[in-house]
Amino acid sequence: MAFNSFGNLLKLTTFGESHGVAIGGIIDGFPAGLEVDLDAIQDELNRRKPGQSKIVTQRKEPDTVEFLSGIFEGKTTGTSIGFVIKNTNQKSHDYSHNTDVYRPSHADFTYDKKYGIRDYRGGGRSSARETANWVVAGALAKQLISKISINAYTSSVGELEMSKEYHHLDFAKTESNIVRCPDEKMAEQMIDKIKEIRKQGDTIGGTISCVAQNVPVGLGEPIFHKLHAQLGNAMLSLNAVKGFEFGSGFEGTKMKGSQHNDIFNEDGSTQTNLSGGVQGGISNGMDIYFRVAFKPVATIMQNQDTINSKGETTEIMGKGRHDPCVVPRAVPVIEALTALVLADFWLLNRTRKI
Amino acid sequence: MAFNSFGNLLKLTTFGESHGVAIGGIIDGFPAGLEVDLDAIQDELNRRKPGQSKIVTQRKEPDTVEFLSGIFEGKTTGTSIGFVIKNTNQKSHDYSHNTDVYRPSHADFTYDKKYGIRDYRGGGRSSARETANWVVAGALAKQLISKISINAYTSSVGELEMSKEYHHLDFAKTESNIVRCPDEKMAEQMIDKIKEIRKQGDTIGGTISCVAQNVPVGLGEPIFHKLHAQLGNAMLSLNAVKGFEFGSGFEGTKMKGSQHNDIFNEDGSTQTNLSGGVQGGISNGMDIYFRVAFKPVATIMQNQDTINSKGETTEIMGKGRHDPCVVPRAVPVIEALTALVLADFWLLNRTRKI
Amino acid sequence: MAFNSFGNLLKLTTFGESHGVAIGGIIDGFPAGLEVDLDAIQDELNRRKPGQSKIVTQRKEPDTVEFLSGIFEGKTTGTSIGFVIKNTNQKSHDYSHNTDVYRPSHADFTYDKKYGIRDYRGGGRSSARETANWVVAGALAKQLISKISINAYTSSVGELEMSKEYHHLDFAKTESNIVRCPDEKMAEQMIDKIKEIRKQGDTIGGTISCVAQNVPVGLGEPIFHKLHAQLGNAMLSLNAVKGFEFGSGFEGTKMKGSQHNDIFNEDGSTQTNLSGGVQGGISNGMDIYFRVAFKPVATIMQNQDTINSKGETTEIMGKGRHDPCVVPRAVPVIEALTALVLADFWLLNRTRKI
Amino acid sequence: MAFNSFGNLLKLTTFGESHGVAIGGIIDGFPAGLEVDLDAIQDELNRRKPGQSKIVTQRKEPDTVEFLSGIFEGKTTGTSIGFVIKNTNQKSHDYSHNTDVYRPSHADFTYDKKYGIRDYRGGGRSSARETANWVVAGALAKQLISKISINAYTSSVGELEMSKEYHHLDFAKTESNIVRCPDEKMAEQMIDKIKEIRKQGDTIGGTISCVAQNVPVGLGEPIFHKLHAQLGNAMLSLNAVKGFEFGSGFEGTKMKGSQHNDIFNEDGSTQTNLSGGVQGGISNGMDIYFRVAFKPVATIMQNQDTINSKGETTEIMGKGRHDPCVVPRAVPVIEALTALVLADFWLLNRTRKI
Repeated sequence: MAFNSFGNLLKLTTFGESHGVAIGGIIDGFPAGLEVDLDAIQDELNRRKPGQSKIVTQRKEPDTVEFLSGIFEGKTTGTSIGFVIKNTNQKSHDYSHNTDVYRPSHADFTYDKKYGIRDYRGGGRSSARETANWVVAGALAKQLISKISINAYTSSVGELEMSKEYHHLDFAKTESNIVRCPDEKMAEQMIDKIKEIRKQGDTIGGTISCVAQNVPVGLGEPIFHKLHAQLGNAMLSLNAVKGFEFGSGFEGTKMKGSQHNDIFNEDGSTQTNLSGGVQGGISNGMDIYFRVAFKPVATIMQNQDTINSKGETTEIMGKGRHDPCVVPRAVPVIEALTALVLADFWLLNRTRKI
Repeated sequence: MAFNSFGNLLKLTTFGESHGVAIGGIIDGFPAGLEVDLDAIQDELNRRKPGQSKIVTQRKEPDTVEFLSGIFEGKTTGTSIGFVIKNTNQKSHDYSHNTDVYRPSHADFTYDKKYGIRDYRGGGRSSARETANWVVAGALAKQLISKISINAYTSSVGELEMSKEYHHLDFAKTESNIVRCPDEKMAEQMIDKIKEIRKQGDTIGGTISCVAQNVPVGLGEPIFHKLHAQLGNAMLSLNAVKGFEFGSGFEGTKMKGSQHNDIFNEDGSTQTNLSGGVQGGISNGMDIYFRVAFKPVATIMQNQDTINSKGETTEIMGKGRHDPCVVPRAVPVIEALTALVLADFWLLNRTRKI
Repeated sequence: MAFNSFGNLLKLTTFGESHGVAIGGIIDGFPAGLEVDLDAIQDELNRRKPGQSKIVTQRKEPDTVEFLSGIFEGKTTGTSIGFVIKNTNQKSHDYSHNTDVYRPSHADFTYDKKYGIRDYRGGGRSSARETANWVVAGALAKQLISKISINAYTSSVGELEMSKEYHHLDFAKTESNIVRCPDEKMAEQMIDKIKEIRKQGDTIGGTISCVAQNVPVGLGEPIFHKLHAQLGNAMLSLNAVKGFEFGSGFEGTKMKGSQHNDIFNEDGSTQTNLSGGVQGGISNGMDIYFRVAFKPVATIMQNQDTINSKGETTEIMGKGRHDPCVVPRAVPVIEALTALVLADFWLLNRTRKI
Repeated sequence: MAFNSFGNLLKLTTFGESHGVAIGGIIDGFPAGLEVDLDAIQDELNRRKPGQSKIVTQRKEPDTVEFLSGIFEGKTTGTSIGFVIKNTNQKSHDYSHNTDVYRPSHADFTYDKKYGIRDYRGGGRSSARETANWVVAGALAKQLISKISINAYTSSVGELEMSKEYHHLDFAKTESNIVRCPDEKMAEQMIDKIKEIRKQGDTIGGTISCVAQNVPVGLGEPIFHKLHAQLGNAMLSLNAVKGFEFGSGFEGTKMKGSQHNDIFNEDGSTQTNLSGGVQGGISNGMDIYFRVAFKPVATIMQNQDTINSKGETTEIMGKGRHDPCVVPRAVPVIEALTALVLADFWLLNRTRKI
């Protein structure tokens, strides 16, 4: 058991509360000999960090990662890679009004009941700040499996849903706008929508799609570590996620087998790819694609009735700085998790034949 | 790493090919002292077994579980529980025509590429026959957490989708019809649909919904073993599953935070339950509900073009006995997996406070 | 956590009570494509089985292993390998007198206190019968790492200690005598000693030494999975073991660094090998050698005072069929465990460099 | 797999090189609600730190632990506990002469061969500096199982072996002298011996004994996580350890069963305790005692012939500041590891009965 660990051979273990001294982690099982591009890691962190645009939280945190071990003279050494990201925004008085109050649809209540104690400052361990750790590890994993390309993007914000399939998108455009939707027209609408929602003091949900290309055949273990099950597990670990589908997904349930089956080409590729690049839990070399559902952020800028730990009714004020829509900042996190899953299976796969 | 294991403290490890000598497993970490109802376990297996009705495969297998250890004088002893289910249907010549052929949207191709060898008889290890093992373990887990009630049911077959929410259903009716839909009118339509599809030599997808009630507050570990992520991981491990959503799911992405937040009652329950019984990865005492998407079964009774292991084109004949829709037989499997996840977290939760 | 599992990538999970239906296990993570010599596995089991000579227990059990999965057309398929060994000797009435009695220096008392229940027939799960499972898995592992040679042998029985170092032994002679000591003269003395002890209705301890040769450089993980620590862990898991030392062992504590350091040859080998083939937890290519201490078997053919589960004093009669010295039959078990540890690290080592 | 992790439910994962930025770790699975005595943790670190007396290395490092998460308002919160110990002594130029040289009986050669790269500064990850992390985690574990008393002490230095059994010792005296031997007369001789060895520029081995008292009955899992096997595994993970024995140990191999069996008293305690407090891998409530063998430290103040990474012969100079005998500083490390093992099993044991 490892409550705060993710992965099998390539394993990330993390710690850290939103307003503690620092967050950080240990990446274990990373192979020796990789020349590390530290700037590329920081770049990924910057894609996730608060304050980067007008449609995300205006909190300011540099989110600078500092590596403490496991990298020597620019290369991984095969030993565990420790890292920290200091919390520069530790104003616990900001949160003093929440000490005893359970915010609706937050984890305050459940942490309190489970542990009998919780760090109430900024959500403590339940804060999405944790995902900065995942981005660090994922950015390293990306460098390990650099031949695989992983592209996530915002595919819907509220009712605004991009109809284009990923084949018709230019992923290079994802970073060209602040909502991270590669369809520029849709991106504008989404941005407007988020701004409108923010003005209302409200939040809105959305979906992120992700595509992994050039994945070698054979990744994934076929019973309890199916490739798509590990991806689903990863995505569902991300704050605010309520659903995961890959390949034909929920729409595929309406189809007949004769429509849904992916017929082979002679080279082993398939004419269609409703399977989403995975057969029997194992990658088949076709594109892996999936979609992740995010609920609207629970912190809203409106007053809400709630209770405190004594079971007394009280009111929670809408103040502070928060994301009106979590989706734009979650895009790099989803790529990071995907990279972690794929890199883990890529290593494992070295051991499956004599 | 344990490729064929599921769970943390309560761990199931399995083996077995569809047409090998037997399938089976080892249940490790099961607490001592539970009086075991062996008939109840066999009953669950019977719910899953082939040949039980006209809308499932007509293959005949008794699927009798035999326990080999860990139960003594009717009680669990705390030692590992070994069990086997013999394969009585080992006619490997039935499958000789498939020795070298990759069936479309099956795992033949990926197993071959990954391992360089595969047991081609009836899908070998990739067969859903494996899920009989899961039902055995899940049935035991159900007895361990007997205060929790777990009810799965067929919620859609193809386009036929039950509109009623689970609150308005009588779960006692699920077993009253062969498609396992507690809405009897809808059940009839679904049965007709499956019969029609079968006549076409085709298959159809569907969804299963599941509700867990009376779950104690505090189950789930909040970072990488979130309760819903483990449920999702479990469900995505099941053959033919393409998606998982819990609580408000994909529909929730269209909502605003002010609509989606579940406001507390004074007793800690919530007025709505869009969260689906989980906050921050931890159960909050409300009903846990989720939905699982199944693609149409890949084996159809129609001829299909395909390739063999040499990359030559060939045709695969539609023959044999298979399920036109996997959903009815998957209902007990989903309950079993849910029980395994909840029982595991229930045990783990004994260790989280001093 | 996996209470009944051993290993990391190559993982054995076991079940079975001494007088239950069967014992058995699942070998997970075994690479695909190995041509399996089933006879060689049974041969190893035969080295361990009861009744093979006059100095071991006269119980008769064929100990025939039956593989249920994971081997197809003579080769491993990469899927989990299930196996059982049926218990043919299930006469539980033999043990009825022990139902409620705690045998001195057995595990009856501790199982009862820990679990509140125990299978009292023949020691149940605490019986050394379990080690037959280990021999099966170890025999398979031996075939995986067939270039490494592993030789264990009896190095002492009671006070009778072989003074020869392993360099001066011919391991081919180990199987030439029933005590499994490659020094024939010493073997005769040991056999006489054990016969004498048996006549007294008593038992005697001893040690087994083991040497692994042709181990590649680089096996072992250097912090918490040191090669020698995993070997020690394995050996201490074996019934009746009270100590483990490798390389210079306890004698080495009396030496000075200037004497103990192994000076390098130009080819990276060392002039001496007090290190025992491991530096910093990693194999260095030199012979790995270690020694394992076994206490005298607790079951003696003499009457002993003891207590029952109610805390009442009672007497336990010396009867039944048991080993006067466990060491001869433990030799193949030690080789099996060594093979499991080395094969696991051999697989892991494929993942430690890019 | 977790290469740098120790434990099951209570799991320590570590990182850090001797001369990197910092060492540190994450303690996962620690139950919520423990009031932490931070000073007591630092005190344990001070017992291990260099420069504390004339018979240990004269290197100066404050070894101050800084907790980064998981402790809030003085109590553990149930979330992962991150900590760092900064390296203040990072003078890498001290070690520049060793960049390419393999020190005899060090891990330079094996790391290089395994990983193709190593941090050569002060031994990098293979340095015993890592054990400071273990002391932090162990000191926390001690507070969790505060009713159990754990006492380690130096029982031999070279040929100087204390003949007194632990029953006749006053553990309160262990800290009264710098060699940590509770027999004051013997302590003096040991100190003189170490001083003499140091003058010779040499090092010497020794043994540490450890006793755990008031251990509840039932700790340990009986097949592959036997209590004594986990203790052995822990001890053998410690740098320079070559052997482990518990209870009667290697001496017990010379005994007969009729002598060795521990006869029960009516209360379930035993008249003798040759078993060392463990039966069948499970604690029986009697004192757990064991002994650990340490080889002489490999770094000596004498010139030695050796090779470099190109296989060329060279000479290594004896200089720097090192321990003439590792035993005095290892005493708190052994207690820490013992506490980690016992606390882990203590938590696990909450889950073994219904």
